[in-house]
Amino acid sequence: MMKKPVLFCALLLSFNCPASTDELPAWNDTPVKQAIEKWVQETTRDGSPDFIPLNKRYVVFDNDGTLWPEAPLTFQLQFAVDEIKRMAPEHPEWQKDPLIAAVLRDDFRAVAASGEKGLLSLVALTHSGMTTDDFAARVRDWLATHKDKRTGCRYDSLGYQPMRQLLDYLRANGFKTWIISGGGIDFMRVMSDNMYGIPPEQVVGSFSLSDYSLGEKGVELQKTMKGAFNDDGASKPVAIHLFMGQRPVAAFGNSDGDLAMLQYATGNPDAKTFGLLVHHTDAAREYAYDSHPTASGKLVEGLSLAQQKGWVVVDMKQDWKTVFDPALCTAP
Amino acid sequence: MMKKPVLFCALLLSFNCPASTDELPAWNDTPVKQAIEKWVQETTRDGSPDFIPLNKRYVVFDNDGTLWPEAPLTFQLQFAVDEIKRMAPEHPEWQKDPLIAAVLRDDFRAVAASGEKGLLSLVALTHSGMTTDDFAARVRDWLATHKDKRTGCRYDSLGYQPMRQLLDYLRANGFKTWIISGGGIDFMRVMSDNMYGIPPEQVVGSFSLSDYSLGEKGVELQKTMKGAFNDDGASKPVAIHLFMGQRPVAAFGNSDGDLAMLQYATGNPDAKTFGLLVHHTDAAREYAYDSHPTASGKLVEGLSLAQQKGWVVVDMKQDWKTVFDPALCTAP
Repeated sequence: MMKKPVLFCALLLSFNCPASTDELPAWNDTPVKQAIEKWVQETTRDGSPDFIPLNKRYVVFDNDGTLWPEAPLTFQLQFAVDEIKRMAPEHPEWQKDPLIAAVLRDDFRAVAASGEKGLLSLVALTHSGMTTDDFAARVRDWLATHKDKRTGCRYDSLGYQPMRQLLDYLRANGFKTWIISGGGIDFMRVMSDNMYGIPPEQVVGSFSLSDYSLGEKGVELQKTMKGAFNDDGASKPVAIHLFMGQRPVAAFGNSDGDLAMLQYATGNPDAKTFGLLVHHTDAAREYAYDSHPTASGKLVEGLSLAQQKGWVVVDMKQDWKTVFDPALCTAP
Repeated sequence: MMKKPVLFCALLLSFNCPASTDELPAWNDTPVKQAIEKWVQETTRDGSPDFIPLNKRYVVFDNDGTLWPEAPLTFQLQFAVDEIKRMAPEHPEWQKDPLIAAVLRDDFRAVAASGEKGLLSLVALTHSGMTTDDFAARVRDWLATHKDKRTGCRYDSLGYQPMRQLLDYLRANGFKTWIISGGGIDFMRVMSDNMYGIPPEQVVGSFSLSDYSLGEKGVELQKTMKGAFNDDGASKPVAIHLFMGQRPVAAFGNSDGDLAMLQYATGNPDAKTFGLLVHHTDAAREYAYDSHPTASGKLVEGLSLAQQKGWVVVDMKQDWKTVFDPALCTAP
């Protein structure tokens, strides 16, 4: 573990430790990597005019397309599809529902055409009506029994290696790392600690309220669709305020749905801030898309805004030495 | 600072450090204090059969009546009253509203008689319609310019000294301390770090959603009453799941509104748990109440449930050496 020395420095709250080892080996030595390292050094070095106190070092990351892939479907939508297929034999009445029938025959064009209302009904079927514990168990079962079709890897082995190193590097320098994602909060929390070293309370996503009951089995929390909050676009700063209660000093995203979050973080008047967008340019190793109409991850306004605002844009193909961690993928 | 050695032990993740100093000097040496210390030792000592891993040491505290007083009014209701008085001269039309008129003449009997709907309208007047930054500034101004009438102290100097020591003691032993309160989340977060050493993201309370806008002044979050969530009673475990994403191993409260939270924590099947209720028995130094009809803090069901469940009940008069920290109160 090359990371020990710097981590140890952070624990002792001493920021004069030499940064002698490369903390970001999965990043090519391009201006993007240099910009990241420069910002971290300027904001954490003792005596720097841009020093940010420890209790203000809050940084926020989108998840889908920023920390792990979102194509061809987001992993959570794939989970919903697989869950519907798993449960279908017990629900013959579902056959009459054209949307579910489309899911069962993998007709994602028809699923997409059902719009937000259609997607929400699939979420309701697979993300409510069970206890929070049962839901977490289902997600764990799904992770253990399903592989990403393209890579043949477990879904929770597909965190981008450069971004995972970036999370470690920021934490080693005293930053609190948060996920602020359109993905479901209960879904992500099952794997966030293991994948990213981020504890459940620092994972914020779309959510609904649960129902409390006290019965023979003790307290149970039943998942419902009540108070559904879609944590995307202009709702991301709202969620940051609600859950984190601090204005972040840096934000990392990949799509136009992240721009409000980047505006909020980089507009923080009390700090030298940092904004970064991951641009998916690597069809060979991952996917290449921006203005294509995909279910998730359109990046059009963001590319021009990044220039105007001085946000760093990662060219996945040029800036990343590796995309996935070969030691994690258990593909055959 | 006598606390240094133990804190240092916790940082080094070594749990064989001797507990030679008294970490709870504001507690009398009664069975209550002994029960607290016994539970902490049993759950944190290396090799103990009841050892709780560091990443499961989440403990939750109510605020009003548990960490600071809630009588004769909760501090937040007092803030709302003072804000209405401050703003009244600019709003002559308010004179026609019987509820506001009652506030202006300190007729709290009439205010209480207005019920939940009345209180909510006072909250709406004083907790929405401004930016989140402006609201925080108003709370800070109020703290700086108003004193608690009975003690003559600043409101944010009135954290109970024994409970503040308990928070420190738990953190020194690796526990993450959270507030789960019916109080407003944005109100408490202004003073929680300073009063209790609890950062904003670990303070959960009643909340509403804000509105995002991007204008000439950059991003602003406007406080609204949308999606209002009242974090009391059965909603406390719901909020714990939403914000913390972990089932706690201990809960500390003082009223029947905390019982669902105590059931949830002490029903955690994965840990040796701990439940505690503060019983207000000290009319001389603070207040004495339980079944009296007060705006906040009825404790009737809790006293019998505590016996049945083995929860510890603090007799404020017997168990606390001091109530407030004389070094903090700046009374004349």
